[in-house]
Amino acid sequence: MQFQEQTSERIRESIKSSPIAILPMGAVEAHGPHLPLGTDNFLAEELSKRLAERVNGWVLPILPYGQVWSLSDFPGSLSVRNETLIHLLTDLGDSLVRQGFRIWVILNAHLGNAVAVKEAARNLYERHPGFRVFYFFYPGTQKVISEVRERPPVHPTYFHACEMETSYMLYLAEEKVDMSKAIDDVPEIPQESDFTPTPWSTFTRSAVLGYATLASREKGERVIEAALDRMTEIVVRAKADLNDEV
Amino acid sequence: MQFQEQTSERIRESIKSSPIAILPMGAVEAHGPHLPLGTDNFLAEELSKRLAERVNGWVLPILPYGQVWSLSDFPGSLSVRNETLIHLLTDLGDSLVRQGFRIWVILNAHLGNAVAVKEAARNLYERHPGFRVFYFFYPGTQKVISEVRERPPVHPTYFHACEMETSYMLYLAEEKVDMSKAIDDVPEIPQESDFTPTPWSTFTRSAVLGYATLASREKGERVIEAALDRMTEIVVRAKADLNDEV
Amino acid sequence: MQFQEQTSERIRESIKSSPIAILPMGAVEAHGPHLPLGTDNFLAEELSKRLAERVNGWVLPILPYGQVWSLSDFPGSLSVRNETLIHLLTDLGDSLVRQGFRIWVILNAHLGNAVAVKEAARNLYERHPGFRVFYFFYPGTQKVISEVRERPPVHPTYFHACEMETSYMLYLAEEKVDMSKAIDDVPEIPQESDFTPTPWSTFTRSAVLGYATLASREKGERVIEAALDRMTEIVVRAKADLNDEV
Amino acid sequence: MQFQEQTSERIRESIKSSPIAILPMGAVEAHGPHLPLGTDNFLAEELSKRLAERVNGWVLPILPYGQVWSLSDFPGSLSVRNETLIHLLTDLGDSLVRQGFRIWVILNAHLGNAVAVKEAARNLYERHPGFRVFYFFYPGTQKVISEVRERPPVHPTYFHACEMETSYMLYLAEEKVDMSKAIDDVPEIPQESDFTPTPWSTFTRSAVLGYATLASREKGERVIEAALDRMTEIVVRAKADLNDEV
Amino acid sequence: MQFQEQTSERIRESIKSSPIAILPMGAVEAHGPHLPLGTDNFLAEELSKRLAERVNGWVLPILPYGQVWSLSDFPGSLSVRNETLIHLLTDLGDSLVRQGFRIWVILNAHLGNAVAVKEAARNLYERHPGFRVFYFFYPGTQKVISEVRERPPVHPTYFHACEMETSYMLYLAEEKVDMSKAIDDVPEIPQESDFTPTPWSTFTRSAVLGYATLASREKGERVIEAALDRMTEIVVRAKADLNDEV
Amino acid sequence: MQFQEQTSERIRESIKSSPIAILPMGAVEAHGPHLPLGTDNFLAEELSKRLAERVNGWVLPILPYGQVWSLSDFPGSLSVRNETLIHLLTDLGDSLVRQGFRIWVILNAHLGNAVAVKEAARNLYERHPGFRVFYFFYPGTQKVISEVRERPPVHPTYFHACEMETSYMLYLAEEKVDMSKAIDDVPEIPQESDFTPTPWSTFTRSAVLGYATLASREKGERVIEAALDRMTEIVVRAKADLNDEV
Repeated sequence: MQFQEQTSERIRESIKSSPIAILPMGAVEAHGPHLPLGTDNFLAEELSKRLAERVNGWVLPILPYGQVWSLSDFPGSLSVRNETLIHLLTDLGDSLVRQGFRIWVILNAHLGNAVAVKEAARNLYERHPGFRVFYFFYPGTQKVISEVRERPPVHPTYFHACEMETSYMLYLAEEKVDMSKAIDDVPEIPQESDFTPTPWSTFTRSAVLGYATLASREKGERVIEAALDRMTEIVVRAKADLNDEV
Repeated sequence: MQFQEQTSERIRESIKSSPIAILPMGAVEAHGPHLPLGTDNFLAEELSKRLAERVNGWVLPILPYGQVWSLSDFPGSLSVRNETLIHLLTDLGDSLVRQGFRIWVILNAHLGNAVAVKEAARNLYERHPGFRVFYFFYPGTQKVISEVRERPPVHPTYFHACEMETSYMLYLAEEKVDMSKAIDDVPEIPQESDFTPTPWSTFTRSAVLGYATLASREKGERVIEAALDRMTEIVVRAKADLNDEV
Repeated sequence: MQFQEQTSERIRESIKSSPIAILPMGAVEAHGPHLPLGTDNFLAEELSKRLAERVNGWVLPILPYGQVWSLSDFPGSLSVRNETLIHLLTDLGDSLVRQGFRIWVILNAHLGNAVAVKEAARNLYERHPGFRVFYFFYPGTQKVISEVRERPPVHPTYFHACEMETSYMLYLAEEKVDMSKAIDDVPEIPQESDFTPTPWSTFTRSAVLGYATLASREKGERVIEAALDRMTEIVVRAKADLNDEV
Repeated sequence: MQFQEQTSERIRESIKSSPIAILPMGAVEAHGPHLPLGTDNFLAEELSKRLAERVNGWVLPILPYGQVWSLSDFPGSLSVRNETLIHLLTDLGDSLVRQGFRIWVILNAHLGNAVAVKEAARNLYERHPGFRVFYFFYPGTQKVISEVRERPPVHPTYFHACEMETSYMLYLAEEKVDMSKAIDDVPEIPQESDFTPTPWSTFTRSAVLGYATLASREKGERVIEAALDRMTEIVVRAKADLNDEV
Repeated sequence: MQFQEQTSERIRESIKSSPIAILPMGAVEAHGPHLPLGTDNFLAEELSKRLAERVNGWVLPILPYGQVWSLSDFPGSLSVRNETLIHLLTDLGDSLVRQGFRIWVILNAHLGNAVAVKEAARNLYERHPGFRVFYFFYPGTQKVISEVRERPPVHPTYFHACEMETSYMLYLAEEKVDMSKAIDDVPEIPQESDFTPTPWSTFTRSAVLGYATLASREKGERVIEAALDRMTEIVVRAKADLNDEV
Repeated sequence: MQFQEQTSERIRESIKSSPIAILPMGAVEAHGPHLPLGTDNFLAEELSKRLAERVNGWVLPILPYGQVWSLSDFPGSLSVRNETLIHLLTDLGDSLVRQGFRIWVILNAHLGNAVAVKEAARNLYERHPGFRVFYFFYPGTQKVISEVRERPPVHPTYFHACEMETSYMLYLAEEKVDMSKAIDDVPEIPQESDFTPTPWSTFTRSAVLGYATLASREKGERVIEAALDRMTEIVVRAKADLNDEV
């Protein structure tokens, strides 16, 4: 179901019978001593493949560059501005519509992309009535996360290279993880950080937000499967709506 | 030498000792019945890996979406506007400079990207003195191509899914090619096409420009190796210049 | 402490001794049958005045137009695009820096503005080192809200014209509220709404998300005072930092 | 007739019966020792209210930030770029059209906004046939001004914090004026100022262009009433045209 | 003194000794039955030549396309948006600074360009301290016009293809005028036209605003010479300032 | 056939009977010691006149400013950014369509403009179906150039102020050439120049790329006539297509 592996010759019919495109979207960003810079990319790709199988969708090539503001001064981080991402996603959406797709899942594994993704989705909503864009960032996982966690999260909204994200990697891309390097690091995040621009380099040197050593494949499995279930449920329903329209 | 496989922890020193980033850049575009939509991406990635080995550079994650105007109404083609690409490349360049890179090779396997790549390179030239951007599209291959070709090219400037490009794929990504589907198709390209916007759908249905059946791994090897030699030569010289500066 | 009531003659010295500007920011948006279109503006202005007294800051004239996507097709809603707001806030920030301000509080009472505000704050962070921008949307109120609420919220992230927001109005601008028109309306918000663009008109006709009839001045007081305490604490600390720098 | 005081519930019908929106538009700008920074805002708001009564229109919340180039380096001036203002006004116009308004009066009390206002009006003219945008800056007052003036103007086109503008304030917002601080200041404006960018700080320290001490409520009344008469006449005629169309 | 007639070889020294560039700027626009579409271009070019002689400046190639909104639906009118013109003039200004020019005269013969010209001049003022930009549109002619006119103007601010503009052409480019076709046409310009976007096609079919038959070479001479005197005076003074600085 | 020499009165009918507009497009750029800065402008204008005669088209006023990156630091070069040019050409195209033109020939004599011209043509292709834009840069001359050349070109793609371009000038604008100053200069162009931004000042001081002394009117005549033949052929065919459509 890798879109770019197909030939043009057969794809037109295939799109008609399965008009669902899935875009993995990640980033290149520092993820502590035990996870690679491409962590969000590996997660997004693997999630996309599994979702594609469940909903019979096409996996587009990954968009591996994202908006990385908070960690942009960590070694290895690469960033694209929100405005650029919005244009890029809007252009791609225009192409997908032209190709006959009806549903576009942007499967985003990097929280920093959320603003651009939502804005692009709204642009496309206004440009292309009838074309549905979904943006997912581990949906439907709040409850299961609270169950599997051994330690409370370092921050209520974001998590990074920690017990949870490391667990996701152990489940989806174990070979990229070096647990021997995993550390626990609980930075004191200044209260102001939610209210004023605050590069993370002001409060952490490791870029690990919490207890990476507590990560396990099992925790990852439970959360990721919950996310996959939720995404599947939503896409399947949207697909059914399409059929109703026809 | 895959950049995103590295951890942040070690990358800073690694960049210092090898400040060369290589960006594979392709497109998703119709390539006839025998080649996949991602042909330019597969070529760009494989070329990048080989160049990286020769010059001791870092391969960045591929940018798999390009400017696809001429074939945008073929099944499967996805396009990003030049303006968007220019911003994206400029953003990435800014990040690379911030990370300490000194040389950026944009290894482009899709001719439609050439305008955006060159414009971004000029932007970066003005923003970051001392940061060198190279853009390559099969450099130094003109002579060897004229030697290996059995049939003349269909067009003096561009080639597509033909004797040559198929040969490149046979050498670099043979498993993606289905030679049993290869065809010969010599469309009559209207003279005006060089002087007025002309979607290719006006003159070809197959998107093959010439004799795909004549492709061979050997032809591919000769041309690709020539391109690699030329790129290596140029990058090695630029690297030597860096050392001279220090 | 209304900035625009001052004369130019005296303001320069006043800015030096109190370099804190507070921008009330709201929107014109449908707020049910019992609250006026300008609800967010009235809240933002009143909050700003009270914060200004506590931190000895200047209240700038309100920016009364915001990003209103979700309710844009309700009668009376007026909207400005995110991109426009970002430019506007960035321009204002540039002026404030030029005028000698050191701290800028954007006191935002409309959630739809949050994206633009944060993006502008980051722009200014990069343009003007040493200039601090804070963006507040009822900070520090999560706990007290959970205490005063009689009914659970209709949505985990946003609230609108409901038990809480109506209470804020009863505390801060009682004369604008017509409790005789207050209703309870618990729409069934589709699960997809968090993952795909969903105008609220698809699930509510009243624009009330919950139990407006449960609102009270006392509930409003407790939450608003908590928000004021938190904002005060943060701004006072930032002010102290300024003095340390000098 | 304050738009934002209304509820969404009733506004749709009200717009249908009176589809006229009036936007007060001013600026925050130095206005000498006797007038506040918000002078243009106070004038715009008061004028808008009076015009609204005469034409049965809706007063929108004021846009209190304008393009302030010439006085941008005076204490207290805040400026927004023309390009930003054009986008903001165009966005608002789009919303007003969507809400069913047919006539939009931009009642501008700050000359520096004139360029942006006109450009936005032209944009909207092309986007929304049948939607009429009027931009007023004290129209129809030339004759009466020449009658009431005791001293000739300092400049043929613009006036500022002077005999005339101070009179307007005395008529419309007397409580904001401190006549005990009023001065006469006749700067020598360089001839070049009409032909080359010339910040006013190069020729005046007070920002008063002429004889503020000569201001009187009566002078203000005569001019303002003339302006109101002219605006009323034009809007009433446009309204009659609407009815003719129906 | 035509800049583009010079060779690169000698120009650097010439710029140093006479760092004044004069840009003729006009438009292609309907000008009635007796004047050509390029009227503003012919005027701008001829004026520029004469000013160049007086101030020892360089005449740049004409910018023959301007902002033509009001007459854009007349046969032959061509228009460029304000935003485009602003960018174009800013780009050119950057180049002139790079080339060592110190004074740039934009000699504009088309009123519709005034907004873009002024905005570009302000941009350049901020980008290049010490680089002076002048924008002229028949400066210093108000008094002499009132003396030579036989009939009052049709509009207080603008004039077009009338007694005055035709006279300018008779003085500066007589061979382009066909007085046998000159007409008198006094349209009733609606009062609203100063306050709302009003294409001229709504009130005139000829595009002549007044009494073209009253035009004479002598009237043209008096006004044009007054304009040249004024421009010369201002530029000579600016030039003297440069020398003072050195 | 100079468009701007016509009056509005007669042009509408004339456009209908000959809906072909020809835009000469050049640049102001260093061209060695023997050719003027406006060389590309003189060539574009003269070529346009001759083409207009052959195809019965209208010559628009020249656009004399182009994108001059490579030689921008040579004395006398003036440059406009690609982005600006694209907007300018798109604006003009919109006007031409509005005026009833069906074919637009952009006769470009400056290679640096090629990118902007092509991009604008594509924009217009999408905006105005049925409006044809042609962009010419000496088309159909490759063979004759190889015949008349005495010396091989210095670079495979571009030529400048050399045997060929000087010959063009001798044929089209002999009075602008000073052959007594012509030189031969064969710079060593670094191989990298095709792959990385390379201002020409890094390899030539004269801006002459080859053997200007070998230029002759006869060589120019042969090449220019070939270009004119080719352009004529293409435009005539497009014109015939128009008639077929009607």
